[in-house]
Amino acid sequence: MSMDFSKATCPLPIMDHATIQLAHGSGGRMSADLIRRVFLPHFANPVLNLLEDQAVLELSLGRIAFSTDTYVVDPIFFPGGNIGELAINGTINDVAMSGGRPLYLSAAFVIEEGFSMESLHEIVAAMARAGKTAGILVVTGDTKVVNRGSCDKIFINTSGVGMIPEGVYLSAANLCPGDKIVLSGTIADHGMAIMTCRQGLSFQSRIESDTAALNGLTETMLEAAKGGIRAMRDPTRGGVAASLNEWAETAGAGIKIEETMIPVRPEVEAACEILGIDPLYVANEGKLLAAVAPENVQDVLAAMRDHPLGRNAVIIGEVTVDNPGLLVMTTVLGTTRIVDMPLGEQLPRIC
Amino acid sequence: MSMDFSKATCPLPIMDHATIQLAHGSGGRMSADLIRRVFLPHFANPVLNLLEDQAVLELSLGRIAFSTDTYVVDPIFFPGGNIGELAINGTINDVAMSGGRPLYLSAAFVIEEGFSMESLHEIVAAMARAGKTAGILVVTGDTKVVNRGSCDKIFINTSGVGMIPEGVYLSAANLCPGDKIVLSGTIADHGMAIMTCRQGLSFQSRIESDTAALNGLTETMLEAAKGGIRAMRDPTRGGVAASLNEWAETAGAGIKIEETMIPVRPEVEAACEILGIDPLYVANEGKLLAAVAPENVQDVLAAMRDHPLGRNAVIIGEVTVDNPGLLVMTTVLGTTRIVDMPLGEQLPRIC
Repeated sequence: MSMDFSKATCPLPIMDHATIQLAHGSGGRMSADLIRRVFLPHFANPVLNLLEDQAVLELSLGRIAFSTDTYVVDPIFFPGGNIGELAINGTINDVAMSGGRPLYLSAAFVIEEGFSMESLHEIVAAMARAGKTAGILVVTGDTKVVNRGSCDKIFINTSGVGMIPEGVYLSAANLCPGDKIVLSGTIADHGMAIMTCRQGLSFQSRIESDTAALNGLTETMLEAAKGGIRAMRDPTRGGVAASLNEWAETAGAGIKIEETMIPVRPEVEAACEILGIDPLYVANEGKLLAAVAPENVQDVLAAMRDHPLGRNAVIIGEVTVDNPGLLVMTTVLGTTRIVDMPLGEQLPRIC
Repeated sequence: MSMDFSKATCPLPIMDHATIQLAHGSGGRMSADLIRRVFLPHFANPVLNLLEDQAVLELSLGRIAFSTDTYVVDPIFFPGGNIGELAINGTINDVAMSGGRPLYLSAAFVIEEGFSMESLHEIVAAMARAGKTAGILVVTGDTKVVNRGSCDKIFINTSGVGMIPEGVYLSAANLCPGDKIVLSGTIADHGMAIMTCRQGLSFQSRIESDTAALNGLTETMLEAAKGGIRAMRDPTRGGVAASLNEWAETAGAGIKIEETMIPVRPEVEAACEILGIDPLYVANEGKLLAAVAPENVQDVLAAMRDHPLGRNAVIIGEVTVDNPGLLVMTTVLGTTRIVDMPLGEQLPRIC
């Protein structure tokens, strides 16, 4: 027995929904509809458009950098950005800090039933813009919808793959006494943008997140450094204090920084004072630290200052033989103190 | 001014916690402690042990498969497995379905404050076992902790990277009329294990999830097929019905299957009947579909049946010129019906 179904159509209408329904995560027709209406228009590229369960990528011989991060920031829209661009930029930065050139990202969404479709559009549009700006492609993805109350609005995981150029081997283990610690700009902008937004604080100048993709800056730096960059790190959760503590521990060396050299915007400093928060521990999302051989540091600084994301780059300290494993800071008062690894959570859901 | 801090130690004790605290997601000392105590003992490998923000991988020239999935299954422990091994096996399978050999996985956790540390250990241990069984390494990760009520216990994202052997180009676009549709075993086990667990149903034989890594099976099949495999797919969310509908649509061909050929365990069939669920739409987590050229299908079947995960492999249908874009089934009664793409969500949070 056989029939001709060639003129058959789906008997159930696909409806426009103003909010996310559980069925949008079903793997069925409404999932496909969500992908076609929301994700594909923004992320369209030849790899993603195949809509296979995995992306197939052509890579040349060599080493790849691979990184993952889930973004759970609260609020999801904040001054200077939203969770979407944060998710794109953050994982690009993790790949870039290896000296790698970020190429491809995955994007996996967990969305609460009832989430606004308009907000989802806005978030995805911001992701697409951020991806274009940074020159990466989102090539594979996943969407899960959970019942109301099972997650707070939306969480986004991005994982990233990039190629590491031949001869580039960055690691905190390479740090040598005398290496200069370079910081690309003002600290604590992202964390304090989130905090002041949550607390309803306002200042004459609005505090905005510094979320940005740093892969352009790192490429410029690597070119200028002629092999003189030992390590790079984006000081996100735990801030500059956590990143430099980790470096000191990994390298088995001391790191000494000068408080007066560390740039903090006046409005950020004011907010930190009001909330009793040390900017050294506050997350950044568009800044990097680099350890650079002293003979190359001026070239690296010059290259950074020529780049829009490194205009305020400064040397904030150096690697020392003394105090192995510790981060030590000369304060504005001229005293010296240990800047310890943060123990716990100053600012939950900052990224 | 300078001081000797070489004998200084952290003045705050790191305490053992029975539950996850917000500080475990801070990027500070408690995060580091969680990584060292829970994640590293299970996942230890030379790449991960570097604890950089990204993994650096050596890959040979060629194409890589890249996939991502977030697992939000509820309950997180279920007959036959838990969310951890599901997260490892699921992403391995997505990579393997491209014909790729899965090599490296990332693991990103979103954990609710107060989650049991013992449960986390159990989940991570299951992930490590699953990874070992499948021969992959977890090389990079991320942990976020959100306030109580902001997520339901634990969500896990895994992203996977694998190498695709030269000459292997699998895609549903390759399907030709006459190709046989092969299914590796019984359907609906995973979904019905979750559902009966949620509903508190019990049967004489317990229904267990079929969660398994299929990369060993796919390698065997590719070797036996001598180029005759057009496409492979693991029918997870939306089940066999969704996967074959997607194939029919992509290929612009019809797919015709025989209901009598599709193996379903009696206890699974009984549970489906009680709950009014069609097993064709139920998620599998250790089964695959393959479209195979007719001249190679017997070799592929023989190889599958020699593998523990393909013992019940059968031909369930074929690709047709008729009914392009549609999945059509000859029922047990001898009638023919369209098996449509599932519209919505039959079974939320199944994976």
